[in-house]
Amino acid sequence: MSILLAGEFDAAERAQWFDLLRAALPEETLVTEPTDAAAIDIAIVANPPAGALRGLPKLRLIQSLWAGVDRLLADDSVPPEVPLARMVDPAMNEAMAETALWAVLSLQRDFVDYAVQQRDGRWLPHPQRRADEVRVAVLGLGQMGRAVVRRLDANGYRVAGWSTREGQLDNLLAASDIVLNLLPLTPATRGLFDARRLAAMRRGASLVNLARGAHVVDADLLAALDAGQLRHAVLDVFHREPLSADHPFWAHPRVTVLPHVAAQTDARSAAAIAAANVRRWRAGEPVANLVDRSRGY
Amino acid sequence: MSILLAGEFDAAERAQWFDLLRAALPEETLVTEPTDAAAIDIAIVANPPAGALRGLPKLRLIQSLWAGVDRLLADDSVPPEVPLARMVDPAMNEAMAETALWAVLSLQRDFVDYAVQQRDGRWLPHPQRRADEVRVAVLGLGQMGRAVVRRLDANGYRVAGWSTREGQLDNLLAASDIVLNLLPLTPATRGLFDARRLAAMRRGASLVNLARGAHVVDADLLAALDAGQLRHAVLDVFHREPLSADHPFWAHPRVTVLPHVAAQTDARSAAAIAAANVRRWRAGEPVANLVDRSRGY
Repeated sequence: MSILLAGEFDAAERAQWFDLLRAALPEETLVTEPTDAAAIDIAIVANPPAGALRGLPKLRLIQSLWAGVDRLLADDSVPPEVPLARMVDPAMNEAMAETALWAVLSLQRDFVDYAVQQRDGRWLPHPQRRADEVRVAVLGLGQMGRAVVRRLDANGYRVAGWSTREGQLDNLLAASDIVLNLLPLTPATRGLFDARRLAAMRRGASLVNLARGAHVVDADLLAALDAGQLRHAVLDVFHREPLSADHPFWAHPRVTVLPHVAAQTDARSAAAIAAANVRRWRAGEPVANLVDRSRGY
Repeated sequence: MSILLAGEFDAAERAQWFDLLRAALPEETLVTEPTDAAAIDIAIVANPPAGALRGLPKLRLIQSLWAGVDRLLADDSVPPEVPLARMVDPAMNEAMAETALWAVLSLQRDFVDYAVQQRDGRWLPHPQRRADEVRVAVLGLGQMGRAVVRRLDANGYRVAGWSTREGQLDNLLAASDIVLNLLPLTPATRGLFDARRLAAMRRGASLVNLARGAHVVDADLLAALDAGQLRHAVLDVFHREPLSADHPFWAHPRVTVLPHVAAQTDARSAAAIAAANVRRWRAGEPVANLVDRSRGY
């Protein structure tokens, strides 16, 4: 049997993943095209285009190289009975914690404003806030969310966490200066940040979205920023990526646009983690980090 | 006897300091004008203009509300025999550590580049580096420098410290991806970052100057950035502040300009610290954080 590597790669990325996985799984046959479809029983995937796993009759395991699997779950050519494992990588968790900390520091210490002032050639210091005066809500308490909470806590912020298994979100939104979204994208969280929830935030609070673009209703966010209800938004993810050239986020002085880099997969560690999961499955042992399709993550 | 409060304040700042100091020192007479010059034996100062302490025959103690005292030492109207105490405030040390961490994160994770890309509407992820792959040199190991070292270390960076009492700097510059300047400004450190020292840094390394503008030869820094010898500079301090409107730093895509905000005095804690030092002096006890004029800090 053999393993299919599938994803939206450029040539250099494909070569890097192929080499790392081949080195980590020397006993396996690794292919990048399903030429012999009936020989493929495992797919290792990185955000593959819809239909990439169609027509693989012996497929028994899908291992994602990405943490988020909403695109795979929305692809009806992916057989729902085949176990799907997410990437859970301590290196990605720390990368996410770094991005969250950078965004929080940028807001606490007004570095987002100084960037706009530099563009305008304007020298204007703002009063300094201490970290323990800044209340941060972390939405989503999976491995990444917990790494973010630990990091912010260690750096002195007042951190509160929330997950979708808990109740009311509005009280927390009303009590937070910065809301950091790390939720999985599911039918329950799609469009979570709409006009109503943005209005439930404290006036002058900021939103940091490091999860999925579809968590946010873009027009409602822009309206909240322009009305002064929100101070600033740091956005790493968008409904369509790359963000289209004419999207108003690019030029908005109260929006920081990042090109989906909050926590990139570290190919070295992710290849090793994927290989270990494949070996567990071959040995008949439990596979780690299986997705619960009923929950959506 | 009475205490003179002197500094470059606007009216609101003067009123805030006056109220905080009066509340912290209810037993003292606090004045903002030296109307009765012979009654003043203590001056509490915040970066006072040259000559502000002239003609005070009974002056016996100067307590600075700022950490840096190079401007006071350069003012020949400040009597050299009067003890001068710097502000050493844990709240300022942590503010400096936050700014240093933000600058290091901005460089490690390419957020300085994403800011330029956003301005240009360009979507381009860069490969991610781990914190433990980034070597940071912290120059200056006073209270602030040590707080910066601790903070960067706790967040996973490879940190090396250097102080002016140590020898050769060039080996450390050659081995560092980010050089963070927190040195005091003295005759020995003025112009430290000239063409020769910038050339001694690793090609593609970055400079973060959170100390004094006069540590850097601006023309040499611009030449090093334009030649690609340096990747980026984060500058909080300048030869003249505010930075003049026509200075090339403002518009340079490889320079981040901050308006001297790396560690602002926290008026609440600084007033309490200054008051405690004044009381120690009145009681005949040793005064904390006296400046050694021969060292210059």
